Amino acid sequence: MFEVAEIGRKVAKDVYESEIAKLRWELLDAQRRLDGGRTPVIVLFGGVDGAGKSETVHLLNEWMDPRYLINRAFDVPSEDERERPPFWRYWLALPPYGRIGMFMSAWYSQPLLDRVHRDLTGAEFESQLERIATFERTLADDGAVILKFWMHLDKKAQKKRLTALSKDPLTSWRVTKKQWENWRRYDRFMAAAERLIQMTSVAHAPWFIVDGSDERYRSLVVGTELQRALDRVLEPEGVPKPSRKRPRAIAPVTRPSAEPASIVTRIDQEHSILDTLDMTKALPDAAAKTAVLEQQGRLNRSQRKATARDVSLILVFEGWDAAGKGGAIRRVTSALDPRVYRIVPIAAPTDEERARHYLWRFWRHLSRAGRVTIFDRSWYGRVLVERVEGLAPERDWSRAYSEIEDFERQLSEHRIVIVKYWLHITKQEQEKRFNERAASPYKSWKLTADDWRNREKWDAYELAVNEMVARTSTRHAPWHLIPANDKNFARVEVLRIAADALAGAL
Amino acid sequence: MFEVAEIGRKVAKDVYESEIAKLRWELLDAQRRLDGGRTPVIVLFGGVDGAGKSETVHLLNEWMDPRYLINRAFDVPSEDERERPPFWRYWLALPPYGRIGMFMSAWYSQPLLDRVHRDLTGAEFESQLERIATFERTLADDGAVILKFWMHLDKKAQKKRLTALSKDPLTSWRVTKKQWENWRRYDRFMAAAERLIQMTSVAHAPWFIVDGSDERYRSLVVGTELQRALDRVLEPEGVPKPSRKRPRAIAPVTRPSAEPASIVTRIDQEHSILDTLDMTKALPDAAAKTAVLEQQGRLNRSQRKATARDVSLILVFEGWDAAGKGGAIRRVTSALDPRVYRIVPIAAPTDEERARHYLWRFWRHLSRAGRVTIFDRSWYGRVLVERVEGLAPERDWSRAYSEIEDFERQLSEHRIVIVKYWLHITKQEQEKRFNERAASPYKSWKLTADDWRNREKWDAYELAVNEMVARTSTRHAPWHLIPANDKNFARVEVLRIAADALAGAL
Repeated sequence: MFEVAEIGRKVAKDVYESEIAKLRWELLDAQRRLDGGRTPVIVLFGGVDGAGKSETVHLLNEWMDPRYLINRAFDVPSEDERERPPFWRYWLALPPYGRIGMFMSAWYSQPLLDRVHRDLTGAEFESQLERIATFERTLADDGAVILKFWMHLDKKAQKKRLTALSKDPLTSWRVTKKQWENWRRYDRFMAAAERLIQMTSVAHAPWFIVDGSDERYRSLVVGTELQRALDRVLEPEGVPKPSRKRPRAIAPVTRPSAEPASIVTRIDQEHSILDTLDMTKALPDAAAKTAVLEQQGRLNRSQRKATARDVSLILVFEGWDAAGKGGAIRRVTSALDPRVYRIVPIAAPTDEERARHYLWRFWRHLSRAGRVTIFDRSWYGRVLVERVEGLAPERDWSRAYSEIEDFERQLSEHRIVIVKYWLHITKQEQEKRFNERAASPYKSWKLTADDWRNREKWDAYELAVNEMVARTSTRHAPWHLIPANDKNFARVEVLRIAADALAGAL
Repeated sequence: MFEVAEIGRKVAKDVYESEIAKLRWELLDAQRRLDGGRTPVIVLFGGVDGAGKSETVHLLNEWMDPRYLINRAFDVPSEDERERPPFWRYWLALPPYGRIGMFMSAWYSQPLLDRVHRDLTGAEFESQLERIATFERTLADDGAVILKFWMHLDKKAQKKRLTALSKDPLTSWRVTKKQWENWRRYDRFMAAAERLIQMTSVAHAPWFIVDGSDERYRSLVVGTELQRALDRVLEPEGVPKPSRKRPRAIAPVTRPSAEPASIVTRIDQEHSILDTLDMTKALPDAAAKTAVLEQQGRLNRSQRKATARDVSLILVFEGWDAAGKGGAIRRVTSALDPRVYRIVPIAAPTDEERARHYLWRFWRHLSRAGRVTIFDRSWYGRVLVERVEGLAPERDWSRAYSEIEDFERQLSEHRIVIVKYWLHITKQEQEKRFNERAASPYKSWKLTADDWRNREKWDAYELAVNEMVARTSTRHAPWHLIPANDKNFARVEVLRIAADALAGAL
């Protein structure tokens, strides 16, 4: 989930300054239009210490009209607060209609820290998140616009940042012992944060995961998202909208009728998670042959053990056309006992499948305990091809992320190991493979006009993959992005990861 | 919550037969119109054993076209089912688009029984309910119509019914040992059921609590609700709608532009929960004087203890105009230490209050620990006057029930004892009191033109009170319906109940 916020996106100073000039004007204008209306706005900041939460709040206060802004930060509850139910102080702090309230360390802080310090069980933590979800839904039902920014840094970057802050005499006061304690529990913190975001990111109160490492990038993302959300809610009042619109930072809109790309979209497109892969990775044939055999042996041993213990394995293969899914799957299956595995190729749904919820066709293919199921394409079609090709409307594919997350969580709770691969090749490599296919009498059947058409939407697919990873790569069902320009390397990786995952679960 | 299903509503045979003839035709017609569309219908039955779940399913199968009906009942999971995630069997059993699926003992059964037998903690139970809510939301987002009927019997009625079934040689096989075991745990069962219904009754998948004691009444309610739900979803297709519409059984629509009342509404109106009160209750002055003093003494002692232990008390007074709220409140406050209590009269909201969510004004009046707060009218205005007078649109007041439930739950979790009174007088008694007020130079200021106008909507208010009790009378915040034609009796009752509640919580 957080890997997409660790790409190191940056914004150049001159680009930033020209963008900010426009953005500030638009934010001020939106504030003016909010005034007198029935919409309160709640902007909440969460995330890692040192990722720029307070800096961003300061900046927004500088950019906007402070008369219409309310800043709220919450410390340890006072005696007065402890004597009331926990949400009392949050209710009283709500901005009135027409105003924007900025909330730091608000209702998410205590449950998150309590979970990190094991003062809450998983079920208790979820029950507190459920209460928060109810609170936010209550506000949204009343017309509130709610935006939540998760300011992220990876463990190393956080350490660097906390060290830098504590070395500077001007900022050292901001780094407390508690923050270092939290840092030492980074992994637990992120595990709890992942669950928190999954359970509470909903259409009426979405979380935006923001890479906090570059000050200009993170400020631009937060400002842009806020402006977009205000713009959307102000639209119905009939006030003419500014022509410039911006897609969401981690969920950019890529429908055919795309709006002019904003600077944030352009940056995200130029630095997608796929661009972080080292596409030069390769293995010579001889080394690959040995490595494949070795990994197949490991996988076979783990699979036998898993079968004996009723642990199942699900492998999901997604990737560009001609990325080598079929070849990789064959290397996997030849390592498995044929009685225990099944390949489920996902093509167009049957009549029976079309007459039900789109997840029904995947539920029905779940195997018994101790089996291996290989999905050649999968439920992710909803947020890839159906999204990009406009086969599903946005309201359908945009809620598929949480539906999928819930589906995979149920599998993993039932002792099913889930491994998801995206086989990545470059656009050039794909073209080469298409041409080879076209020239080969044995392979030309594989190539259709659709394949060439899909290439034209490469950028849209890339954004869709980026959002898919952001929203559905979880601890219990992680995405593995495999550089697959070299088939040898990709096949060994696929085998190694499957064997690792299964061995790790036993 | 369940008291409204214990009134013993009945339908006469001839009325039933003429209603059913129309209903069956409409249900068949709705099935025909569903066919070929994108809407699957899920009808789920839960509730108390012996309250008519299976009889109702049989009946619906008789009434409707069985080719478009799918019946599902779930037993202990098979080996095949146990090897998949728990929801696998429910997913596979879903009806296709255009069909109706009837579910008995489905996804709610196991969590409920596990909670009753203490195999689940409260938090674990809620986390399973949350999973169910996610499942149902996923289906509803895909267009499914979901109706859930809770077939209810009180403890005595259930015993009688189980005994009758087991004595008849033709039905004795239907009563198992397990059902008697469940009966012995009746109170726990109902406590868990209350939480279950609160957490999972939502607009897109509502629960209907049905009095199961009269076969004709319960069949009519279930059939009518199903027909109404189908009618509502089929409407947008442009097929002309039958002119006859029916309000919900436990949530009858009472807006000014009310549709012609259905038989179910008429029965519910004639037998509302308020009609079950014994309005002849009275106390002579001398006895009342002693009793008031006695109860005031009890309340005072409990209040002192509560204050010392930081336990708060909230008393909510609602009732008809001139029902005697003021007098009752004065009897309460004279028993309390003036440093600890506060009366909050609820009239029109201030500007500041109007600029925020309607619950904000009540949150702000929460006292510190160990205090007593008396609300003279309350947050229930939303579902009483604002509903009946059309001051809040239906979408606002209809979600207020769950918002209120959540609010009160937070209070009660924070060691605040909540007691809610509805002071009930008859329409005749109110007229008498109005006339007395009009004639009295000291009281005529209390009487406004509004008071006379409100009387005209007596029936609408009565239905609103009935639904309010059904939806918000909970174990932690029960409604007490007080016969108040006799002021003496009402005042003693109010004091006694407050003293009991506080003593019980200490």
